[in-house]
Amino acid sequence: MRKILLLFFTFSITAAFAQQKTLSGYTKTSSDQEWEAEKKFDSYLQPANLDVWMKRLAGRPHHLGSAYGKQNAEFMRDLFKSWGYDAQIETYKVLFPTPKVRQLELVGPTKFTARLAEPALKEDATSGQTKEQLPTYNAWSADGDVTAELVFVNYGVPDDYDQLERMGIDVRGKIVIAKYGGSWRGIKPKVAQEHGAIGCLIYSDPEGDGYHQGDVYPKGPFRPQHGVQRGSVSDMPIYPGDPLTPGIGATEDAKRLDRKDAGNLLKIPVQPISYADAQPLLAALGGPVAPEKWRGALPFTYHVGPGAAKVHLKLEFDWKLVDCHNVIAKLKGSELPDEWVVRGNHHDAWVNGANDPISGMVALMEEARAVSELVKTGFRPKRTLVYCAWDGEEPSLIGSTEWVEHHATELQQKVVAYINSDGNGRGFLDAGGSHTLETLMDEVSRDVTDPQTGIPVRDRARAYKATTAVGAKARKDILDKKVLTLSALGSGSDYSPFFQHLGIPSLNLGYGGEDDGGEYHSIYDSYDMYVRFKDPKFAYGIALAKTAGRATLRLANADVLPFDFKAFSKTVNGYLTEVMTLLDNLRESTEVENQMIKDNVFVQAADPLIKYVPPTPKDAVPFLNFSSLQNALTSLEKASTLYADLRANNTVPNTNLTTLNETLYRAEQKLMADAGLPRRAWYRHTIYAPGFYTGYGVKTLPGIREGIEQRAWAEAQEQIEATAKAIERYTKEVEAASRILMMR
Amino acid sequence: MRKILLLFFTFSITAAFAQQKTLSGYTKTSSDQEWEAEKKFDSYLQPANLDVWMKRLAGRPHHLGSAYGKQNAEFMRDLFKSWGYDAQIETYKVLFPTPKVRQLELVGPTKFTARLAEPALKEDATSGQTKEQLPTYNAWSADGDVTAELVFVNYGVPDDYDQLERMGIDVRGKIVIAKYGGSWRGIKPKVAQEHGAIGCLIYSDPEGDGYHQGDVYPKGPFRPQHGVQRGSVSDMPIYPGDPLTPGIGATEDAKRLDRKDAGNLLKIPVQPISYADAQPLLAALGGPVAPEKWRGALPFTYHVGPGAAKVHLKLEFDWKLVDCHNVIAKLKGSELPDEWVVRGNHHDAWVNGANDPISGMVALMEEARAVSELVKTGFRPKRTLVYCAWDGEEPSLIGSTEWVEHHATELQQKVVAYINSDGNGRGFLDAGGSHTLETLMDEVSRDVTDPQTGIPVRDRARAYKATTAVGAKARKDILDKKVLTLSALGSGSDYSPFFQHLGIPSLNLGYGGEDDGGEYHSIYDSYDMYVRFKDPKFAYGIALAKTAGRATLRLANADVLPFDFKAFSKTVNGYLTEVMTLLDNLRESTEVENQMIKDNVFVQAADPLIKYVPPTPKDAVPFLNFSSLQNALTSLEKASTLYADLRANNTVPNTNLTTLNETLYRAEQKLMADAGLPRRAWYRHTIYAPGFYTGYGVKTLPGIREGIEQRAWAEAQEQIEATAKAIERYTKEVEAASRILMMR
Repeated sequence: MRKILLLFFTFSITAAFAQQKTLSGYTKTSSDQEWEAEKKFDSYLQPANLDVWMKRLAGRPHHLGSAYGKQNAEFMRDLFKSWGYDAQIETYKVLFPTPKVRQLELVGPTKFTARLAEPALKEDATSGQTKEQLPTYNAWSADGDVTAELVFVNYGVPDDYDQLERMGIDVRGKIVIAKYGGSWRGIKPKVAQEHGAIGCLIYSDPEGDGYHQGDVYPKGPFRPQHGVQRGSVSDMPIYPGDPLTPGIGATEDAKRLDRKDAGNLLKIPVQPISYADAQPLLAALGGPVAPEKWRGALPFTYHVGPGAAKVHLKLEFDWKLVDCHNVIAKLKGSELPDEWVVRGNHHDAWVNGANDPISGMVALMEEARAVSELVKTGFRPKRTLVYCAWDGEEPSLIGSTEWVEHHATELQQKVVAYINSDGNGRGFLDAGGSHTLETLMDEVSRDVTDPQTGIPVRDRARAYKATTAVGAKARKDILDKKVLTLSALGSGSDYSPFFQHLGIPSLNLGYGGEDDGGEYHSIYDSYDMYVRFKDPKFAYGIALAKTAGRATLRLANADVLPFDFKAFSKTVNGYLTEVMTLLDNLRESTEVENQMIKDNVFVQAADPLIKYVPPTPKDAVPFLNFSSLQNALTSLEKASTLYADLRANNTVPNTNLTTLNETLYRAEQKLMADAGLPRRAWYRHTIYAPGFYTGYGVKTLPGIREGIEQRAWAEAQEQIEATAKAIERYTKEVEAASRILMMR
Repeated sequence: MRKILLLFFTFSITAAFAQQKTLSGYTKTSSDQEWEAEKKFDSYLQPANLDVWMKRLAGRPHHLGSAYGKQNAEFMRDLFKSWGYDAQIETYKVLFPTPKVRQLELVGPTKFTARLAEPALKEDATSGQTKEQLPTYNAWSADGDVTAELVFVNYGVPDDYDQLERMGIDVRGKIVIAKYGGSWRGIKPKVAQEHGAIGCLIYSDPEGDGYHQGDVYPKGPFRPQHGVQRGSVSDMPIYPGDPLTPGIGATEDAKRLDRKDAGNLLKIPVQPISYADAQPLLAALGGPVAPEKWRGALPFTYHVGPGAAKVHLKLEFDWKLVDCHNVIAKLKGSELPDEWVVRGNHHDAWVNGANDPISGMVALMEEARAVSELVKTGFRPKRTLVYCAWDGEEPSLIGSTEWVEHHATELQQKVVAYINSDGNGRGFLDAGGSHTLETLMDEVSRDVTDPQTGIPVRDRARAYKATTAVGAKARKDILDKKVLTLSALGSGSDYSPFFQHLGIPSLNLGYGGEDDGGEYHSIYDSYDMYVRFKDPKFAYGIALAKTAGRATLRLANADVLPFDFKAFSKTVNGYLTEVMTLLDNLRESTEVENQMIKDNVFVQAADPLIKYVPPTPKDAVPFLNFSSLQNALTSLEKASTLYADLRANNTVPNTNLTTLNETLYRAEQKLMADAGLPRRAWYRHTIYAPGFYTGYGVKTLPGIREGIEQRAWAEAQEQIEATAKAIERYTKEVEAASRILMMR
């Protein structure tokens, strides 16, 4: 019996190896060397290190500007140094508001004063560090002292205001209360402000983030009644980073905007609250019953207001400049020191942040340590590695953005790719990024084994996707696609400046899905919580180190950088189909809706006893000319197929190798539009951006897609042309790469 | 300006009349007479009568077997008599269990005794009639005294047990708690019993039926915390009516089954409870967290159990025979006394039943009274009208079923159609029935004006459908279809014996959708509730009288009965497409799922820390031979088109008119399968049936569809043949009708 099993295993391993004889970008010889190095690399990884470092780094609150945050930066710098890295702290001076006054009360029909605080728990050792904890607040809220009727606006996204309009409800002069979810949080006060609200509360409804999801902390990992989600509400889709220094590094002597001129700051006060604090406010609302989909899991009838319920919100902040400490640790490449692979994770947290961000940070550190062990045995990476621990990510990706803006020219010259991670936990690989890196990540995820099931993490991610897909066709499509699919990147972590501002090919990697909980941005995101509920034995921390480590090392050691332009071309073609369908569907739905308005159908169907305001007709949706982009993508498909064919033999050209590689990694920069996206020039990538009205949520072909969504037809047409030009520039680089290969 | 408006209105009216010059089945002359009669009929209708009668009929509890129910029957009989009807009470002796002992307690981990009672409210005058009220219970529960661990089974339908199996949870020897919704209530204990449970609780979750839907009674109309939905849990999809006399009338001397041999009675005890009573039980459950879709709106984490929570349920019933009093009021037809149009509504309630059923009952009474006024002015209907007030509908459609079984032969000979109503309220017309009557109902609903909007009720129903449809295409399809669409009938009211047992063409009519509430089968279904929240001025009671009255009168007075075989043919063709698609989709999903099982994908995707049992492979889905049914439907299409063409001129044949009409109204009887449906011979209609596992929910082409759903391939194939034969028999009748028309 044992013999049969052994035979079976031997066969499996042989079959797996037979699948691919070399790594993309490598010859047979260099592949074997790389695999050998990775095997060693794996053997160096110690979960115990992650445990010790998490306990240390999450031991006290360490937000931007905190004493402990600085100590953490120094601690990490010293570790990197001890592993042989050229490590230093690069410090910027950045704006960071912290609360001085926070007051929220229901002033009518009854009185209630919100607690605005999270209680310490005996089951959670760090939850009582009250003196160092940032109180519950939304960074970049305006100062304000407002009293007004309250209106419940669901998630507070534009569609919700459309529905309020149908109900005849206007939020002008009102304070709105929105629940978390449905968009990035910063969208809620932005849209509220656009509609004339004078204040905004954001609460965690137990339906999405509390007892409705599972047992609450400390019994289970879900958000307890007084738990609050802190977080930034700057208008990050305009620009991230220090609000006073857009586009430039916030060095000591940088030229700073006046705060009132910062283009991404709110004018109204915003406060996040727990469901315990929200309950009396929501229960006091009058007005119509909230639409079915707006209702959460609190035990009463959700009303929209306005009416009896009146609240008073007073907020004041200390708008000070603080030090933002990035740790930058370099390991000079043995052959190509001016080609950099940058790998980063942030180190600042809202409070203790064991999961967000320390779980990712400690995986990165162990990865860097294992690399240093490799170096000791003679496997020094060919290209330079740059390990980064960013400060100030939570308020607005500040550390990474300032560093990228500060060193932009050098980075655009040297950086081959940026690989990001953030929080990490038990579950499935989630990999997003530039689709030129899809094949690289497919090979990486094939070669990393899931710690729980023993199968490649790629296959487990696919199994999960297939199992959760709805319908046989969708399932079959997923099962049939044997390679990993990268998701597109919006925003919400430190890849944004690299990727969307500079056009540096980027990845964002992490594990999760079996680590659900409600500790996000609360005092309960602690070491105690993490080791009970998130990744008890740091097995997925190690899996992340193996995954990101492989991606980093394979990029660092490749003979010819493994960029897959065909995968990119195919993916963008898919996006084009999507936006064309979007336009067609919008045309059809506009026609039907306008007809229904004209025929009075909405009024006929409405309950006459409930106030109803019918929509007004919308402008008809024109046909747009997509031909320039279609032609550009056809050329790209041709060029990328030729390049792929030329690379099929995996040989290394004798001449111009450096030029070839530079061409490859800089190609993505050609996708940047000089003018940037409409109304947000900082974002320049024509293919990927965070949504203007979704926040973190990605919009692919953003200029075109958002032009259509916003019904800005002329703008959408301009953006088609701008995107086509970007693709044409990009295609020229791919053709240039092919020419080099043909010269050999 | 006024002139222009006037012109516009004149034009509109002219346009509307131009649309149709005659009613289907009528000549120009007889159409005009009919329209004139209907105008008069409308003018007789008095909302005040509905108000007075509702106050009287719902004034005290009047369930089957109650003293007040008998008084109500006598009161109605006397009214019908006073209007000139030949009215009498027909009484049957039927089984009806009422509770003697009801006891439910949580015996561990903590103690809790369920209240099992609804408190009286000062805002509701009849809610305190405790002595006459039936207590909260499910009729046809078995006697039982069980103590066991509790398991939450969501809606308690077969899919839920599949999911329990995936969680490794077995309900054998357990008591289950299911929430109302997702199926007819009788399905829940039936499926629980099939899976080995020894008791069943059914509760109203506030998500679907309580504060999550809107303000609770008495502030609003929704179910308050102690409100309980009573109701029948006999296995009605097997057969309705008195369980002891299936297929025959339950006359005094009828041959009765022994109760243990009744094929539609449960073996386990079942008790309905309020959410106030359910809360401590559900909160005490251990075991895994309930799947997302299972969770309701109670303020805690829903667990599945089993575990700590143990309950004791003790129920005993008085299994007595009671009198079931149907009121039957006939108005002999002036020309065709042996052709009957039967119109019915039940009069028994669970408690006071102002909405269910009195709101429909009083509309029927006013309709009958207005008809009697017409008679006085010389408009006596040509065919006989039979107005019925059924008793015992709530326990199991008893009164109507016993009457139909008792008089089956006569009814199959004489009845042109049966028109049913039940509860009624403010909102939109909902019309279901045999699709041969679709054109009739289109014309009726075009000619009845909605009291709130002043447009035809047909158009308002379409506006509502269009507005609530999802997607531009679905909306457009609805707007483009200018005629009324009948829904298919499952069960849940008194049309079942007429329609599905005898094959008498039937309709079920009612208004609703703006009368939401949570009074259903509780003591709060009262006059006070009704006039505050349901149809305050009885405007929709009058609309129902106009609608059902027109349907009744047009059938009674038609020269040639307005049966539309083309509409039926088209609809059944649509059902055939549905079941063929169902089979194809099942084949595809089975293939994919079996592959996923084989490849271990479900196990790979499952969280190893949570118990998971993968599904076992299912038998492959064969191709079935639909050709006999396809051919039969092709012949029917041809025959019904010919018949429609022959009827296009609306003339009346000189000879054989009676034979023609008999052929028309008896055609539907040919759709009955002699053998009935598999495992439930009482249901004989091959096109429409209540679902074996949905209860009230309709299954069209039931033998075929349920054969496929239950993966009984040979049975599905047999049912295709049986249905094809039924369609062939039916087609012969349509051809016979055409031959008569061609003879003239």
